[in-house]
Amino acid sequence: MGKLFVVGTGPGDVALLTPKAEQALQASSDLVAYGLYLELMGDICAGKKHHDLPLGEEIGRARLALDLAASGKTTALVSSGDIGIYAMATLVFELLDLQLQGKETGSDHSAAWLDVEIEVIPGISAMQAGASRVGALLGHDFCTVSLSDLLTPWETIEKRIHCAGEGDFVISFYNPVSKKRDWQLNKARDILLQYRPDTTPVLIGRQLSREDENISIITLGQLDAKDVDMFTLVSVGNSESRHLVNGNREWIYTPRGYSKKL
Amino acid sequence: MGKLFVVGTGPGDVALLTPKAEQALQASSDLVAYGLYLELMGDICAGKKHHDLPLGEEIGRARLALDLAASGKTTALVSSGDIGIYAMATLVFELLDLQLQGKETGSDHSAAWLDVEIEVIPGISAMQAGASRVGALLGHDFCTVSLSDLLTPWETIEKRIHCAGEGDFVISFYNPVSKKRDWQLNKARDILLQYRPDTTPVLIGRQLSREDENISIITLGQLDAKDVDMFTLVSVGNSESRHLVNGNREWIYTPRGYSKKL
Repeated sequence: MGKLFVVGTGPGDVALLTPKAEQALQASSDLVAYGLYLELMGDICAGKKHHDLPLGEEIGRARLALDLAASGKTTALVSSGDIGIYAMATLVFELLDLQLQGKETGSDHSAAWLDVEIEVIPGISAMQAGASRVGALLGHDFCTVSLSDLLTPWETIEKRIHCAGEGDFVISFYNPVSKKRDWQLNKARDILLQYRPDTTPVLIGRQLSREDENISIITLGQLDAKDVDMFTLVSVGNSESRHLVNGNREWIYTPRGYSKKL
Repeated sequence: MGKLFVVGTGPGDVALLTPKAEQALQASSDLVAYGLYLELMGDICAGKKHHDLPLGEEIGRARLALDLAASGKTTALVSSGDIGIYAMATLVFELLDLQLQGKETGSDHSAAWLDVEIEVIPGISAMQAGASRVGALLGHDFCTVSLSDLLTPWETIEKRIHCAGEGDFVISFYNPVSKKRDWQLNKARDILLQYRPDTTPVLIGRQLSREDENISIITLGQLDAKDVDMFTLVSVGNSESRHLVNGNREWIYTPRGYSKKL
């Protein structure tokens, strides 16, 4: 019986790939991943059998990884970022859950999935890469909200944004836009503007930690979906987040309130 | 003028320390950190000047790191986990902010802080280490709430827990208890029980990724502060999080809803 590593490779820069993730890739004969992620990893993935499936084929990819491991191959299912955060790990367990309930019908080998040893390896998520590049945006209570309404009803997403606003959480929006989804981010902005000022600092981080990284600091009032694509993280400060300008460097941080005690 | 690295070293296991963080430690002559964190890193920190200050001396530690860097020394300010998440990074920027406003009075060298080059390096946070050990608990929208009311009024914390409950976020509690704070976690549990069932799965992760790691999966109804200490992460699933038992392995995951589409 094989082993399945479920591996997050971080935002892109191999210097943010953990040794544990690298060891898992090296121990595997078969890698299941969207091609671009593996290209970022360079030589580490050389000589492995690479199983690619198009974006959107997430269930197929998780099934294939379980099938390969069940057939005896040491397999890595790979996502960029943290594979446990809006990524493939949860799908592996959704499929296992279906199998345990006797409802999985997509694989002829799914009975053997239950014997596969599974190890999940976390990675640096985009919100962390982004926050670190601009200072300490996640310095106090924060939340994440995916704006993709493919699987989650928009009413649920909208309610979460209201709750995040009401609770004054720093908010990172994952999947802010896609080719077919262009209005959700502006709607999210308008909801947040009911709770925090239009001067609230916002991080727009595109291709974080990669060669073509582009980072900008704007205000909530300036946030517009037309400036954001699917490779972009959007993080919105809370009502106390501060934008500092020090010469030609600028920073955003969210205080915990130490300076009040000085 | 020196450089200040602000470095998160991950939960403890050096296999979860990123190469970027390791390089920063190696490039530094001076390390400012609570002693225990450096012990976990082993040989990487050998031969460096180690500036220790007791827990609770957070402002002093951030000031010392800025002073050392301003004096020309390549310095690393180090926390375990992600230094940007409830850790020292935000303090560096709170101090810089005070200096920019002309309000910093704790250091004779603070004018020179503004010339220090600062680089923040993220790390794997406890919630990620914990979620990965039990499956995919952070698979959908989540938030973090610190239960420490030393700097944040309890009313603010309580409101956030209500909002997190209302929004059905997965919630990770940082600083769940301390020697002097023992009632906040049970109060937080009682608030969440107004929003989600007492069967909701909960992860209790103590000393995550370290030699004496201890992980248990309980229910929200069973959560009790007496079973938790300051080395423990508590993550509470949302109303859809599932507890799977497969032979002698158990998992928690939070579905994104792919299986509804099958």
